[in-house]
Amino acid sequence: MKHLLSTRDLDRATAVGILDIAEDMARTADREVRKLPTLRGRTVVNLFFEDSTRTRLSFESAAKRLSADVITFSAKGSSVSKGESLKDTAQTLQAMGADAIVVRHHGSGAAHMLAHAGWIDAHVLNAGDGTHEHPTQALLDAFTMRQRRYGADSRGRDLEGMRVVIVGDVVHSRVARSNVWLLSTLGADVHLVAPRTLLPSGVETWPVTVHEHLEPALALDPDVVMMLRIQQERMHAAFFPSAREYAREWGLTAERFAALGPDTMVMHPGPMNRGLEISSAAADSSASTVLAQVTNGVFIRMAVLYLLVAGSSEESA
Amino acid sequence: MKHLLSTRDLDRATAVGILDIAEDMARTADREVRKLPTLRGRTVVNLFFEDSTRTRLSFESAAKRLSADVITFSAKGSSVSKGESLKDTAQTLQAMGADAIVVRHHGSGAAHMLAHAGWIDAHVLNAGDGTHEHPTQALLDAFTMRQRRYGADSRGRDLEGMRVVIVGDVVHSRVARSNVWLLSTLGADVHLVAPRTLLPSGVETWPVTVHEHLEPALALDPDVVMMLRIQQERMHAAFFPSAREYAREWGLTAERFAALGPDTMVMHPGPMNRGLEISSAAADSSASTVLAQVTNGVFIRMAVLYLLVAGSSEESA
Amino acid sequence: MKHLLSTRDLDRATAVGILDIAEDMARTADREVRKLPTLRGRTVVNLFFEDSTRTRLSFESAAKRLSADVITFSAKGSSVSKGESLKDTAQTLQAMGADAIVVRHHGSGAAHMLAHAGWIDAHVLNAGDGTHEHPTQALLDAFTMRQRRYGADSRGRDLEGMRVVIVGDVVHSRVARSNVWLLSTLGADVHLVAPRTLLPSGVETWPVTVHEHLEPALALDPDVVMMLRIQQERMHAAFFPSAREYAREWGLTAERFAALGPDTMVMHPGPMNRGLEISSAAADSSASTVLAQVTNGVFIRMAVLYLLVAGSSEESA
Repeated sequence: MKHLLSTRDLDRATAVGILDIAEDMARTADREVRKLPTLRGRTVVNLFFEDSTRTRLSFESAAKRLSADVITFSAKGSSVSKGESLKDTAQTLQAMGADAIVVRHHGSGAAHMLAHAGWIDAHVLNAGDGTHEHPTQALLDAFTMRQRRYGADSRGRDLEGMRVVIVGDVVHSRVARSNVWLLSTLGADVHLVAPRTLLPSGVETWPVTVHEHLEPALALDPDVVMMLRIQQERMHAAFFPSAREYAREWGLTAERFAALGPDTMVMHPGPMNRGLEISSAAADSSASTVLAQVTNGVFIRMAVLYLLVAGSSEESA
Repeated sequence: MKHLLSTRDLDRATAVGILDIAEDMARTADREVRKLPTLRGRTVVNLFFEDSTRTRLSFESAAKRLSADVITFSAKGSSVSKGESLKDTAQTLQAMGADAIVVRHHGSGAAHMLAHAGWIDAHVLNAGDGTHEHPTQALLDAFTMRQRRYGADSRGRDLEGMRVVIVGDVVHSRVARSNVWLLSTLGADVHLVAPRTLLPSGVETWPVTVHEHLEPALALDPDVVMMLRIQQERMHAAFFPSAREYAREWGLTAERFAALGPDTMVMHPGPMNRGLEISSAAADSSASTVLAQVTNGVFIRMAVLYLLVAGSSEESA
Repeated sequence: MKHLLSTRDLDRATAVGILDIAEDMARTADREVRKLPTLRGRTVVNLFFEDSTRTRLSFESAAKRLSADVITFSAKGSSVSKGESLKDTAQTLQAMGADAIVVRHHGSGAAHMLAHAGWIDAHVLNAGDGTHEHPTQALLDAFTMRQRRYGADSRGRDLEGMRVVIVGDVVHSRVARSNVWLLSTLGADVHLVAPRTLLPSGVETWPVTVHEHLEPALALDPDVVMMLRIQQERMHAAFFPSAREYAREWGLTAERFAALGPDTMVMHPGPMNRGLEISSAAADSSASTVLAQVTNGVFIRMAVLYLLVAGSSEESA
């Protein structure tokens, strides 16, 4: 595997393999083997054209635990803001010795272009591109579902038979897209819930069931309810319900949460808007996997960096 | 010791113990043992809601010399500015693997809340909370006083019999508060000098002598004169003297400095406003401990990180 | 060698010596010896008063490959913006344990002052001061010329007999100045091309030939054509040609590039303004050394850090 750009092109065996490596990474952390020498002398560059402290710190932690050197290139105030192209920036970072480039970009398709335009040889990890994909988020979500369902030792398992309800602003959500592809590949039964104006055109071709209202989907007794983050800056657009209406119609209120089955997981990619898409009752409950998702995010990113960067050097050796 | 939140709750033995460990740290630096493996594989997070380059870099240096991984979370431009709560931020950082969180926050009491609200298990180090406390600053000040008075080998000693005059905007100064508690616990005779409008209500219950004018305090032949930094942004408030009046009445002018005893130390937490609260004659003299304070700040922070983080893992082993 | 402030005071033997060490650094990278223990336990501070992501990351990479701890002090939002002087900032950084300070400053002469005012003992590396010098840029340019001309193994060689044409906004360019001094010291025949308004007064005393127009200089069949970066923010000044006129008269257009000899190198310090001072045809050609310059920048900075910091500790041992 050379790049991680999308979950759409991962087959089930590859996806399960990544989850299995992440499980190994989690195990080393338990045993207080806190620092692995795997990527010693390698350089991982965080190339962030959008702010995302959480994702950036998670990749940074993952790379450091593998003993890589980490260099952060924030596009603000850099030569990029002086008009340098993505191509020149990427080639410059590679020329400085980057073995892998973790890229977050506002343009859908930016990671693909970086990987496939022939500009660079470095490994590219998509950390979110426009409204397109955020594959490590979906992988950490799948890992968290598998871990909750089958325990810490669930090597080889997929998500066959699990019912997942994803709720929110699907049209603008790369998290939703990456999860739809990955979860269905892993055998889950995926449902989307969104106001009509927040559904993408073409959703009828996706491997999902679509609901306009939340209650019918929750009535299916799902194994997982995943609430998407509402981007506050979109809330005043014409196509958007008011905050009050959104919370009432599509939020995981305390009442709706109380009606869920005892084993239903509540997921959220964070940061949460408490009282908007999710109530504190749900967020702080034992059903919530929000913090486990953060912890598992580091393990998934360690797994992917290991697979791409360490794996490739063995190939070439 | 689990957290370092305040100097008010440190007893004399504990405080002297921290100074003694810092002395050990200083000694390893002298012997060119520049990097200790103590915190290898541990993660120290700098969580800064206020800019403070000096304090942040000092903690960063201290953690790196102990071989910890350091992650900096600046609240500007992060999810915090998107409305994430302190609780969610802290829990997220801990979920990413933070063993210790160094927090600087504009709210008095923020560090206490972080440590005691039951949100996280990580060690909390208060790097300044509102106008409340800045305990590592007081510890490095005490260390510097002890070192100047008794030399590099002053293990076990306290500050009994030393007279310290602290001058400036006491009401807004966490440095002053932390020093008042710590220095009096260590046996020093503490004097405060401030315009009436810059004294906190309740100061009469503090273990100090209060002076409105500088001359009577300097006439006591103090061992230490500590000038507090004037926050320029406060200077135009109604309660504040003009810069000219402040420098003339409460500044350590060249004339006042020349009249000090030959062994009186001149301290300042930095950064200095030369010509306002301190003259260059004083700042650049051999009586000045300003740079020693900076150097000792790294040793104190190494000592505290060692005591909290390395100490606790031995307990749990 | 204590500091690197300028190329003007480097003699030929010293300059060739730096290039030779950089060649050793390049060789270790080839052999997958990616991390050298040379500066383990040493602290390199990046003190940047101007944004320059590329230069900062290059120094950061170089220091990390030598196993140094790297601390970045960006003057924005720091105590410097609260009025702290360069002197106090530098002394503070040294007091925190800085062994070397890499400084980028808008003031010509800032690096010299830092090194020679008697404020600090740390090694000073000039990473660009005003319109004065940028010595590591000139060294990496010279290294790149030597490497292209003589191959990976060109130890001991200088640039005798090479003809170099430097084109652009010479008056504001520290890159041009550092290259003029270094390249002529190394024996190159240096030509400058610039509109009359972009030539410095006193250029007639420099060891160069000056041309107002590009064609006559290119007609000399140079070994190297180095295009300087146009600072967009200067383009609307009265002394500046319009972008259209600049590109037409002084840009390395596709037509001019096509007319160059087959072995002529095209150099640019980056980031490039494609279509302004350089065409994509030239920038992306095999004649272009733009990315080699970036790669070599890391080796040159490793060499200089090694020479200054590691070298000095051996002296004192």
